[in-house]
Amino acid sequence: MSVSVSQRGTQGASKVSILRVDAGGPRAVEDKVAVEEPLEIQLSYAKRGIRVVKSVSVTMRTPGSDRELAAGFLHTEGIVSNASAFESWESPATNVLRAVLREDIEVDLRSMERNFYMTSSCGVCGKTSLEALRVTGRISLDPARPLWDGARITSLPATLRADQLVFEETGGLHAAGLFAADGSLITTREDVGRHNAVDKLVGSQLLEGHRDLGGCLLMVSGRASFELVQKAVMAGIPVLAAVGAPSSLAVDLARQFGATLLGFVGNGRFNIYSGAQRVVLLADPAS
Amino acid sequence: MSVSVSQRGTQGASKVSILRVDAGGPRAVEDKVAVEEPLEIQLSYAKRGIRVVKSVSVTMRTPGSDRELAAGFLHTEGIVSNASAFESWESPATNVLRAVLREDIEVDLRSMERNFYMTSSCGVCGKTSLEALRVTGRISLDPARPLWDGARITSLPATLRADQLVFEETGGLHAAGLFAADGSLITTREDVGRHNAVDKLVGSQLLEGHRDLGGCLLMVSGRASFELVQKAVMAGIPVLAAVGAPSSLAVDLARQFGATLLGFVGNGRFNIYSGAQRVVLLADPAS
Repeated sequence: MSVSVSQRGTQGASKVSILRVDAGGPRAVEDKVAVEEPLEIQLSYAKRGIRVVKSVSVTMRTPGSDRELAAGFLHTEGIVSNASAFESWESPATNVLRAVLREDIEVDLRSMERNFYMTSSCGVCGKTSLEALRVTGRISLDPARPLWDGARITSLPATLRADQLVFEETGGLHAAGLFAADGSLITTREDVGRHNAVDKLVGSQLLEGHRDLGGCLLMVSGRASFELVQKAVMAGIPVLAAVGAPSSLAVDLARQFGATLLGFVGNGRFNIYSGAQRVVLLADPAS
Repeated sequence: MSVSVSQRGTQGASKVSILRVDAGGPRAVEDKVAVEEPLEIQLSYAKRGIRVVKSVSVTMRTPGSDRELAAGFLHTEGIVSNASAFESWESPATNVLRAVLREDIEVDLRSMERNFYMTSSCGVCGKTSLEALRVTGRISLDPARPLWDGARITSLPATLRADQLVFEETGGLHAAGLFAADGSLITTREDVGRHNAVDKLVGSQLLEGHRDLGGCLLMVSGRASFELVQKAVMAGIPVLAAVGAPSSLAVDLARQFGATLLGFVGNGRFNIYSGAQRVVLLADPAS
């Protein structure tokens, strides 16, 4: 599989070269994935005559409608009540948007400041720690293992679903399952947050003393975002398989670290976005 | 509809009294929703002989496996490399978990501290600003409007889907659509993050000078989390309809603010979790 740099196609979608595996066998095709990039929202406002610039949010978003995103965020967080508060918009750097408020607009960030916190759901923090670890060499995925049979991969979502207790009751939870190289299910965890389900799964293995997850596959019930690839790599799990679609940044990160990324897994088919050498495929019967 | 306080059933699921609307007409039933509650993860570690306690994350999670969640988070963020680092676990308050590390464990939070940020994806910040606004009376949803015809509601997901450009290409985006009281689609926005799609939508109306959204309905393509109800209420939109399931906290918040919350909308059916007085229903033909 060619590891071409992804190129922006339609706004919001990015082209990638992948392997599509279905009843017709594996085929190299051009596919499109949703673009995911960080956006830092800054607020410029006057405080006792002095202009102050503060970073109020970093979010992983699909580029486009960035001013609307910033305006909606500032409005629903209770900081800006109407559009006349905005004097202008600046972009001091790529993926940084600064909302400049009129001098007479009073800003109360106290409710936000009391609650500054970090979360793994964005992944920006994680990226920094990931890059640090890469330099120190703590992360090294074995490029030759594990080997997974393509036919077995398509059966994993059903196995994961059968083990989901709360989802059956509520229809409202993300699930993550850890599979051994022989295809057996090690354990599953569920959560309203997809990153939490993966954290619980990785944590369960850590607390039970199972440190080498280099032979495992991580299956998630939803889409594959940047943060899920990050968590798999940090936990030393070389294969991430998702029932849903991956984002552009998920594909980029998996390729960067040599991880295997599979999407749209199920119903006798899946797509390989990265690391195809870990998947054993039958040749296309037509070729 | 009875507005009973939700009670914990099976771990991870919570019982709620709802109205189920389908071909058989509206019926009051007991349903289960996935539980969503905040968890603050604290880290206690020794620094030059002095014990330091720091809050490292607040995440909206489904209760259960909290130690695993914290251990997995600390591991995938690169802070704790193996289980022997943990000396003990403390719970200084409800929904607060403290990981106490052994005295000889060195902790480097610099990569995290450089990247402290806040995001709307958790909603904890938003909750505070919401409570503040409630006290000052800025939020008041009209309990009598808008009135929505039940049959029209089931057609909204198809209208939203038809307007999703990038989803068709990638299968990987959340969508949010704003509908006027006459059922017409005002506009839609898409994003890899469901909260971003809603922020973009709300921001578009704000920037275009449409301040009164009290007659509108907000439709989202995925599940209804706490944060989406929060954003709808903050934007003054009284009706939130989701293709997927709501969480327990989403139901609680909608009831608290008198908002209408609809879930599993589509295929001739939907569930009413809160604010049924805004939905015009045909009587059950069997009754």
